[in-house]
Formats: sequence, structure tokens, C-alpha cells
Amino acid sequence: MPILGQNQYGKAENRVVKITRDGATHHIKDLNVSVSLSGDMDEVHYSGSNANVLPTDTTKNTVYAFAKEHGIESAEQFGIHLARHFVTGQERIHRARIRIEEYAWERIENSGDGAHSFVRKGQETRLTQITYDGEQWEIVSGLKDLVVMNSTNSEFWGYVKDKYTTLPEAYDRILATEVSGRWRFNWSDDEQEMPDWETSYEQVKKHMLQAFAETYSLSLQQTLYAMGARIIDHRHEIDEIRFSLPNKHHFLVDLEPFGLKNDNEVYFAADRPYGLIEATVLRDGCEEKIPADLTNL
Amino acid sequence: MPILGQNQYGKAENRVVKITRDGATHHIKDLNVSVSLSGDMDEVHYSGSNANVLPTDTTKNTVYAFAKEHGIESAEQFGIHLARHFVTGQERIHRARIRIEEYAWERIENSGDGAHSFVRKGQETRLTQITYDGEQWEIVSGLKDLVVMNSTNSEFWGYVKDKYTTLPEAYDRILATEVSGRWRFNWSDDEQEMPDWETSYEQVKKHMLQAFAETYSLSLQQTLYAMGARIIDHRHEIDEIRFSLPNKHHFLVDLEPFGLKNDNEVYFAADRPYGLIEATVLRDGCEEKIPADLTNL
Amino acid sequence: MPILGQNQYGKAENRVVKITRDGATHHIKDLNVSVSLSGDMDEVHYSGSNANVLPTDTTKNTVYAFAKEHGIESAEQFGIHLARHFVTGQERIHRARIRIEEYAWERIENSGDGAHSFVRKGQETRLTQITYDGEQWEIVSGLKDLVVMNSTNSEFWGYVKDKYTTLPEAYDRILATEVSGRWRFNWSDDEQEMPDWETSYEQVKKHMLQAFAETYSLSLQQTLYAMGARIIDHRHEIDEIRFSLPNKHHFLVDLEPFGLKNDNEVYFAADRPYGLIEATVLRDGCEEKIPADLTNL
Amino acid sequence: MPILGQNQYGKAENRVVKITRDGATHHIKDLNVSVSLSGDMDEVHYSGSNANVLPTDTTKNTVYAFAKEHGIESAEQFGIHLARHFVTGQERIHRARIRIEEYAWERIENSGDGAHSFVRKGQETRLTQITYDGEQWEIVSGLKDLVVMNSTNSEFWGYVKDKYTTLPEAYDRILATEVSGRWRFNWSDDEQEMPDWETSYEQVKKHMLQAFAETYSLSLQQTLYAMGARIIDHRHEIDEIRFSLPNKHHFLVDLEPFGLKNDNEVYFAADRPYGLIEATVLRDGCEEKIPADLTNL
Repeated sequence: MPILGQNQYGKAENRVVKITRDGATHHIKDLNVSVSLSGDMDEVHYSGSNANVLPTDTTKNTVYAFAKEHGIESAEQFGIHLARHFVTGQERIHRARIRIEEYAWERIENSGDGAHSFVRKGQETRLTQITYDGEQWEIVSGLKDLVVMNSTNSEFWGYVKDKYTTLPEAYDRILATEVSGRWRFNWSDDEQEMPDWETSYEQVKKHMLQAFAETYSLSLQQTLYAMGARIIDHRHEIDEIRFSLPNKHHFLVDLEPFGLKNDNEVYFAADRPYGLIEATVLRDGCEEKIPADLTNL
Repeated sequence: MPILGQNQYGKAENRVVKITRDGATHHIKDLNVSVSLSGDMDEVHYSGSNANVLPTDTTKNTVYAFAKEHGIESAEQFGIHLARHFVTGQERIHRARIRIEEYAWERIENSGDGAHSFVRKGQETRLTQITYDGEQWEIVSGLKDLVVMNSTNSEFWGYVKDKYTTLPEAYDRILATEVSGRWRFNWSDDEQEMPDWETSYEQVKKHMLQAFAETYSLSLQQTLYAMGARIIDHRHEIDEIRFSLPNKHHFLVDLEPFGLKNDNEVYFAADRPYGLIEATVLRDGCEEKIPADLTNL
Repeated sequence: MPILGQNQYGKAENRVVKITRDGATHHIKDLNVSVSLSGDMDEVHYSGSNANVLPTDTTKNTVYAFAKEHGIESAEQFGIHLARHFVTGQERIHRARIRIEEYAWERIENSGDGAHSFVRKGQETRLTQITYDGEQWEIVSGLKDLVVMNSTNSEFWGYVKDKYTTLPEAYDRILATEVSGRWRFNWSDDEQEMPDWETSYEQVKKHMLQAFAETYSLSLQQTLYAMGARIIDHRHEIDEIRFSLPNKHHFLVDLEPFGLKNDNEVYFAADRPYGLIEATVLRDGCEEKIPADLTNL
Repeated sequence: MPILGQNQYGKAENRVVKITRDGATHHIKDLNVSVSLSGDMDEVHYSGSNANVLPTDTTKNTVYAFAKEHGIESAEQFGIHLARHFVTGQERIHRARIRIEEYAWERIENSGDGAHSFVRKGQETRLTQITYDGEQWEIVSGLKDLVVMNSTNSEFWGYVKDKYTTLPEAYDRILATEVSGRWRFNWSDDEQEMPDWETSYEQVKKHMLQAFAETYSLSLQQTLYAMGARIIDHRHEIDEIRFSLPNKHHFLVDLEPFGLKNDNEVYFAADRPYGLIEATVLRDGCEEKIPADLTNL
């Protein structure tokens, strides 16, 4: 008889918006929360008995109820509340994984009292994944959709050439990518002091951008490593970071047929194919735990 | 024999990135340009003769060549160069319509000299459409994907009730929408002084956001009109504006089954269906020219 | 004071699935219905008074109630029921426009009795738009996302060459497009006999595909006209059809650097830019009513 | 100093279309190929030296050249050619992973000779991933975007109820999902006889659909297991299969406020949130190798 392997279930993409009122001034948290639970679930697969199954509808209700009961201080803290609840509250559930996307808003400036009017920032999407097995926590936060570009200070030459190589070497090119990154915190135990999740996120993003900007790049791999290393160096709460960086090619357009010289001015921004550079950067002595292939909802 | 009606052709979605160097400091323009030409094109439809057809590949080349020859001062100005070229340069082409999307970038802060490193802003997409028939210009600019929210100061009551009406009246709700707007300039002739397209865009966006924020709203229609009217009042270069505003519903979650009171704090952000409110606001005495159903590539 | 122009409102993207049971055999209709109403709506824009406004929530309820009350014989017939209801049922509403997308399902073969198990066909999306002003009907049906390819029997040469032309002539190329088409029925009055909407759709699609396949093409414009003309010739219920056909370029890859000959075998399928060919084909003597720029939700 | 962990690179999303001519009859293979290479790549990350780096542009060229040199018998066979080439051809590359999406086309019926005209089928996307380290092969094939529905023969009751549970039990509901599945072949060595990849795919899809259709379902988990078990039982070449099945909720609309009875006829098809059920089914005695979180480009 075929046997059951790893399995998990829950409600995905619960869109919760929480308004907090500080007098007339409002604050928003705008999250997309996905719950995934594992445990003693053989029977529901083999026979359809739901005796151990907390409905996915209930996991959805819990997300909304917890937004009221615990508030949403940060995506990470909110996920910790949820994961703890499912694992400690249900005997048959042994592991909870909470994934959250967060969308940032900023105040509309110079508008009346500015207290309750917002425009979605629209830049990167912030991410976190909280995993809890009743004893250990694993918190992997991240971001996606952050598009960056250096309009110079990038080269690419000295590479291997085989019979299928036609690429000319480049000594001044555009380097652009859409950053997808995930970083793992070394906080894993309720006994440890918890990081300040909001500050940590802002600082990681800042260091990532600065390393991208300041690295004179001979390859996107070098830039990737510089971004990761700078975060490991500056943020002691983080032990590991993995990036998936598409090389968003900007091809210099050949304008010679029209009698024009293109002095690194006019580029065609291509969609597909694209280079894809992926790597993990680790604090020395730490274990690699972020999967090689990043996933998100 | 079936006859040919309105027809147009060209190359769509030419992605051009232009870098301008001001000493060590670089500037970016990042556009998606679509060309659409009309004229004496019966024969290519009836018999396949391409004798009057400038290839779409040529229209693409022209976009890139013009980025070098004319630079990209603004999307509007760039489209005007292109439209004029096709209509005046080809006897058989009588009308050109250029549509452009523009993606904004901002500098990466505090990074070395900050002169050539950028992060995509990621908020709204700026739009323009230039139409030229050899005599008159029509410039319709706009934006899409600008998501805004008021967390209070919105009500909805006093509406018609028929046998299918179940909606309870609301006296304090979230009002959120994703603005898609198009505005028509009254500049239409080379003899007129041209508006400052960049300033105009910034000001229109500012007034739109402020009107959204400052309107105590009894209906999304009222907010829409306030947004349009404020632009007409403040920007003399614009005669007409049309909005398509999805009402992005945020439903207050019923927490009573869990013994909790939801005091306008916890919302479910729904995807579909959504209300859709569309209207044109006009300067008094002006003609309505923006089509009722907005289109973009 | 700025004045109000064309305006419309309603609930968009109501996803309704209707199961009809014919004994043990079930039938599915799977629609996405958008309602848009116009009428005496100045006041809601100027002052926020909802006294003339039937809530969009009510239009949504009506869609679901009508699926029960009238069934869904075809998307067109369903839209006609809805449009008539809003215009005749509400004094202040003078015009209704119903847009519907339909997703096709087919039975899972050889599965038990096959009576209630389905797989989504996944090919084109069927479309219709019903407009009613209390007197006249306008029915424009269509489809989108139908991707077709001829792997030969397409040429492109003899075109205009200007200083920006570099394209070599082609005597055997792939012709591929993603068909977006809309066709207008000449049924416009309750006194006329109504077309069989289901049969009409199947036949239009069949003729469209056959004309695409059988036309030896010297330009995509010629193929477009052939597709439209064939429908006008064979389907007397249709007076006008408009196509928007992206030329999905398949570029022959240059394999010579690798010592290989590419005898029209290996192609790169490009995303952007793409040619875009748009035209209307009309029954002789009929008026052009489908807008030049197709829109859909 | 921060250290480098797992890393891989290559060109993603190479869109290759191969036409094969059998006399006047043409055949299409339409693939999206992504190459990912690993090996001695420390230096390019630490210092930017590209001395060990075969450019991603070369991996792209190789995809197109191999379409000519080897043809595309199946996505799996094509990926095997590519992976073998990179690992055996480059001393510094120790592992290649090739991911391929395949889009199916069918002939346009009754059209002239039907020999070279095609319409994209548009149903599921076929997938494969080939991994090779110079000794062992791992072939994981799959599909995504296959939407299925049973309009009856599904129940959900007898589940755990906690303080956040409000869901009423259901004794006749719609069960719909969008199948994402991956299955691992036990072929792993050049010495073994290779499966017939095309037949295998067709048979796996057939069994998957039949098991979905024929299972009277008490939970989506039970249906998932039945789908996997049937494949393991019927296809000896497959040892493991993993599904990710969103529960595409179809909610029975409450029509009572309108005096109507909804006898399992009218449903609202919801987008988000959705249940998400994921599990692996294994041949007894086999090892679990497909990652718990499926990824694809």
C-alpha cells in the first residue's frame, strides 16, 4: 500500500488589516497570513476521518481573533502568537508554520490632520515565516520585489569560454536585479531575548541597499555576497541570509545603423531570459537551514 | 464583401531605459512605449500588400534612436517627438498614437556618492497617451495602481432599497481604492505654450491625494468628484479628468462568536467582487473626450 | 464649478457558479459578472446623497438571485435578464451594461459515471457585454487568450523602408498571435428573434480558427481581415467584428556561430515588444460601433 | 568573515520553440527552460573572479543549439542532454539542474490539410526538473494549473471544534482544486532502462483525474491520497508524488432573504483565503526526496 509522507494543511492568504487608534492618529498593519499545520494526520488521508483535523476555517478565524486579542506589533510577533497557539492548544498538532506578507503604507502628506489617510508605499513586500514545534522557534524573515539598479560600476569579463560562448566582455554595464532575500534569526528559544523585529527589518534593508550601491561589481555573485556579508557583519541577530537575484538584463541598443553613437545611454530592458544568481551567506560556524529553493505563497 | 473599419498597428511595449550623465551624477528615465499608426492601410488588409506599411520593427527602432537623438525630458515630450515623426515623415500615415508607461526610481540614500544607484519607487505607474493627426494634439496623461485608504471619515447610508437589498447602513467605514485616472490637457496646438509636464504630474498627484484625504465621504462617488474638481480648480492646463475607482472593500470581521468586540479595528480585505465607480469631471464649457472605458496596454 | 460627465457604477467581478442537475448528470456554468449602471446620479457625486443609488451590494445579490430565478442558459441570455431588471426596475437607472467572462469546463473522461466531475478546459475565455437603455439592446460577444500559430505559410516583405528600417524580409516565418476578438450582433430589439447564443459562439470560434489556418499570410493584417470576413460571410447574426492581435514574434535563432544550420526549426519566443494589429471588419452598409480600443475588466 | 553556503546560477526562462517537419506535417515542442549550475564557485562570490564561470549567456546558447543538435523528443530527454553536457563538459561544474515548463498545442481541426496550424491547448502546464551530479540522475516531473471540480460526492464533518470554530458541517459540497503535483521517477542511473516520458505523463494525468473523479470525498486530504496512491499503484516507474492542493472554496449563496431556496445550485467562487492541503505519497520502502515546499520558476 502506498504510504503517506510529509503533510501539512491550513488556510492560506488570510488578508487582515488592523487599525490601531492613538487618539485621532491611526496606524495600519496590512498582512496576508498563511497557516500550515502538521501532526497526527494519517487517518484523514487514509480514511477521510476528520477526528484530528482542526478546520482550515478555524485557523482563519483564529487569525482575525488574534489580531484583536494580541494586536499586531510586528508580523513576526503576530506569527509567534499564532504558532504557539496551534501547537500548544491542539494535542494532535505538532508543528505550525505561519507565513506572512506585509504591505507598507505611508501617510498622505499635508492633508488636513494626516491622521487617518494613507497611500500604499508599493515598494518591496516584507515577508516572514515562523516555524514552531513546541520547543524550538525558527524565524526566517525577508523581502521580495525590491528592484535596484546601478547605472555604472559593473563589469563582466574573464569568464570561461566554450564552443557555445558568444558573449562579448563588458567593462561598463548596467547592473539591475529584483531582490528576493530571506534571513534567519538566531533567536530560537523563549528563554532568549527577542530581537526588535521592526528595527531589524529596517536595518537589514538599509545595509542591503547600501552594499548593492557601494560594491564595484565584477559579477552579480560578488554583489550578492557583499550584500549578505554586510548584513551578517552588522546584524548580530541574523546568522544566515539567502538571496535569489535575477540579473535583469539591460542591453545597450546598437544605434550604429542609424548613424548614432550609443555612449552607455540607451538600453533595452529585457524580460526573459534572465540570469538567476542564488546563494547563501552564513555567519562562520553556523548551520545552513534556509532551503536552496526559496518558496513563498 | 465585408469592409474594413478603423484599424491601427505598431510595436507595443518597447522597454527603453535612458541614462543621462550630469558629471558623475546619473539620471534615469524608464519607459514602456507603444506605437500605434493609422492611415492608408486598406490594401494590406485586403490583399496583404505591404507597400504602405512601415514595419513595426522600424517603429521600435525609432523609439530607441529618438531616445538618443532627442533625449527623454518627459514621457509626454518624448511621445510628441515620436508622433510628429511618424505623421510628418510618412505620407501614408495620417495619425499616430503613442502610449507610454513610466516607472519611477529614487536614489539609494547614504550610499557612497549616491550618484548612480537607484531603487525602483514601486508606487503608481505614470501614463501618457499622445495622439496627433498632423494638425491637432491630444495629450491624456494619468496614473494607475495608486492604492489609498482612509481608515475613518467614510459613511454609506440613505440608499435605495429593493427586494434584493440586504446591506446594512454604515456610519464609520474604511474607504480604500486603487486609483486609475486619466486627465486631458488643453494644449492641442504647436502655437500654444506647452505645459511643464513634470511639474503638472507632481501637482495633479498631490491634489488628488489631498482631496482623497480631506473629503469626509458619504459615497465613493462624492470622493471621486472631489478629487477631479480639485484638479480642475488648481491646474488650468487640464480640462477633463476621468477616474475608475474600485471600491476595495474592507469588511469588519464579526468577532462576537469568540466573545470579542470589534471596535473598527480588525478588517478582512476582500479581493472580488468590488464596487467600481467611474466618472468624468470637466471644466465647465469643455467637451468630454476621454472614453468612458479606460484602456491601456 | 467643475461639472460631472459620463458616470457609471456597479459591482464588478461577481463569480457565480451554477450547477444544473439533469438526473444524476450535472452541468456547470462558471461566470464572472460585472454590472455597471448609469442614470440620474449627479447628486451622489456633488453632495454624497445616495437617494438615487441602488447599492453595488444589491447588484451583486441580484446576480446570485437571478442565477436561481432564471438559470443560466447562456452568458448572453443571463446578461439580458439582468440588464432588463435594472433598467425597468429602477426609475433613476437609465442604462445598464453587463459584462461577463465565461470559463469552460469539460467532463473528466472514463471516470465512473462521469456525471459530476469536471476539468477546466483552460483555453480561451469567452466574453459578452450586454447594454440596454430601455429600448435598444447592444450585444457584443467575444473571446480572449486564444493562442494560435501557423508554423509556415507566412511571409513579410515589400514594406516601406525609412532610415530606421533594419528588418530583413522574410519568406517563411512563424505566424503566432493571441486572439482578442469582439463581435456585435444585429439583434437589438425584443421584437426580433433572438440568436442561439451557444451555437453562434461555437461557430464563430470555428470559422475564426479555420480562417487563421487556411490563410496563406503576407501580413498579419491580411490574416485578421480574412478571419473577420469569414465570420461576416457565414454568420448572418453578426454585423461587425474587431480583433486585437499581438504579433507574438518567434525569432529564428542564429546557430551559425556553433556551426549549425537552422532550417526553420529552432525559434526564440519573445515576450516584448510585440507587433499589435487591430482592425474592425464590417458587414457592408453597417455602422461601426465597437470602440477602437477594446476594454474588459 | 561571513562564509558562502549553497549557491547556483544559470539562465532562467529560455523560451524555445522547435518545429519538426514530417513531410508537410509539422510538430511543435514549446518549452521554457531554466538552467542552474553549481560547482567550484567560491572565488566569483568572494573576489568577483569569473575564471570558473561559464556565462549564463552561454547556457542560453546551449539550450538553442541543443534543440537543433538533439531535437526535443520530450522535455525530460532534452533536460537530460543539457544536464549531462554541463556536468561532463566543465570541470568546475559539479551539478546541473534543468527545469522545464512545457505548453501543449493541438491541431486546428478541419482546416485545409491541418498540417501546420495549431491552437494552444491552454490547460495544465507540464513540468520537469532534471538534476545530475555526474553519477546519479533525479527526474521529478509534474504539472500545475489543472483545475478540477466535483459538483457533488464531497462531505466535511466530524472535525475538531475549538473556541474559534464556527464552520457548519457539510454533507454535500462542491470540491474544487487547482492541482499542482510533482512525481519522482525511480530511474536514476544511465544503466537502467529509461521510462517512456511521454506515455508516462499521459498516464499519470489520466489516473490523477480519474482518482479525483471517482473518490467519494470526506476530506480533500483523502482525495489527495487517493490520487497519489492510484499513480503509485499503476505506474511502476514512479516512487513518490507530492501534491499541493488549494481548496478552491465554492460557497452556497444564502438566497433566503430573497424568498428563494438554494438547493445546491448557486455558488460564490471565492479567491482568498483558501484551504491549502499538501502531502507526499510514497511507494512503500522508498525515500522521501521531493521537498515539502514545491518551487518552480
